[in-house]
Amino acid sequence: MSTPRSTAVTRLREKQRTDRAGLDALLDAVHVGHLGFVDDAGLPRVMPSAVLRDGDRLVTHGSTGSPWLRRLATGVPACVEVTAVDGIVVARSAFESSIRYRSAVLYGAFEPVPAAAKAAALDRVTDALLPGRRGEIRGHTDRELAATLVLAMPIATWSLKVSDAWPEDPPEDVAGPAWAGVVPVREVYGAALPAPDLRAGIRLPDSVRGLGSRGPVP
Amino acid sequence: MSTPRSTAVTRLREKQRTDRAGLDALLDAVHVGHLGFVDDAGLPRVMPSAVLRDGDRLVTHGSTGSPWLRRLATGVPACVEVTAVDGIVVARSAFESSIRYRSAVLYGAFEPVPAAAKAAALDRVTDALLPGRRGEIRGHTDRELAATLVLAMPIATWSLKVSDAWPEDPPEDVAGPAWAGVVPVREVYGAALPAPDLRAGIRLPDSVRGLGSRGPVP
Repeated sequence: MSTPRSTAVTRLREKQRTDRAGLDALLDAVHVGHLGFVDDAGLPRVMPSAVLRDGDRLVTHGSTGSPWLRRLATGVPACVEVTAVDGIVVARSAFESSIRYRSAVLYGAFEPVPAAAKAAALDRVTDALLPGRRGEIRGHTDRELAATLVLAMPIATWSLKVSDAWPEDPPEDVAGPAWAGVVPVREVYGAALPAPDLRAGIRLPDSVRGLGSRGPVP
Repeated sequence: MSTPRSTAVTRLREKQRTDRAGLDALLDAVHVGHLGFVDDAGLPRVMPSAVLRDGDRLVTHGSTGSPWLRRLATGVPACVEVTAVDGIVVARSAFESSIRYRSAVLYGAFEPVPAAAKAAALDRVTDALLPGRRGEIRGHTDRELAATLVLAMPIATWSLKVSDAWPEDPPEDVAGPAWAGVVPVREVYGAALPAPDLRAGIRLPDSVRGLGSRGPVP
């Protein structure tokens, strides 16, 4: 793990994790990243974007017409934050109440994925978001690939912070009348909605049906 | 809406919304923001933090020991991104597939909430995250307030982008065999888990019970 800048967690150090497996698990579960960069005026910008781990790199993509994606493509310093909210920690005081979360921050620079490798990189995005979908749809057209910018950043400099604790109330609050615990939070899929222009007789595909196993809450 | 920098959406302009009510609805529904700023070395940083709309300002808070919060407190330029993922748009090609989302980006600078106003600002955070909780717990102590930095940024310069569309496949794909539609995504609460040190006989409070009405998926 090279460190062009410090990735040491400064607050609540006991929550820092340094295992790459923990990072990968988060990146493989959460596909929306928050991409930070500095604009021409030296001001901070943050944009949400679908991000996907592809081995030791993080891949994002979008339209070749996107100014911020084009800026990232020039290799300016980038920061990608990926966070999952796992629960509300309900302590016996507001002060001790908090959030259960997993949060990663990755630093580096993106570079464009070469034209010849774009299709494969985009296929991995589809495989991650909707496993099995690729077998149900046509391949990319040259026009589509030409209109898509695919960027990759090495996973090299990062920090991971995990809060999976219970309330940590002092004894005098534990002895009091207030309840304490955790309310789990999770993301679930609802029932699929057919497009208004869906032709009659086309059934729900296996890929979409398979999403159901990732939710809902039992 | 003052504009020290442009908030015009550059891509997919038809998705831009300029109504403040739409912004408020998003900020009132999503309480995790992604705070961007530029560090001492001129590099971008993005950190997740609980954010809350309090009228015409955005409030965040944390420990007085947090270096990045202390940096934001100096009034450096800040960017706050808040995003809700509402669904997966499953089109008949990978190219047209996308995400349903609501995403706001706010620009400005934070300033510390004065000591005398901290308690009220923190109470609004509790009210937003867990309505009714304040009546079930003790008030803040002076020590707790002194250890907490509360920052506020005016809601003045912002952009809002909403994607609530259906797949927009070209006619030749609509005529094909592939399914198309939307899979809704939402965040839900699971059953509350009592803390290991919860004393016997303390029942689940109304505040936590009330969260159930915000989930789960039917």
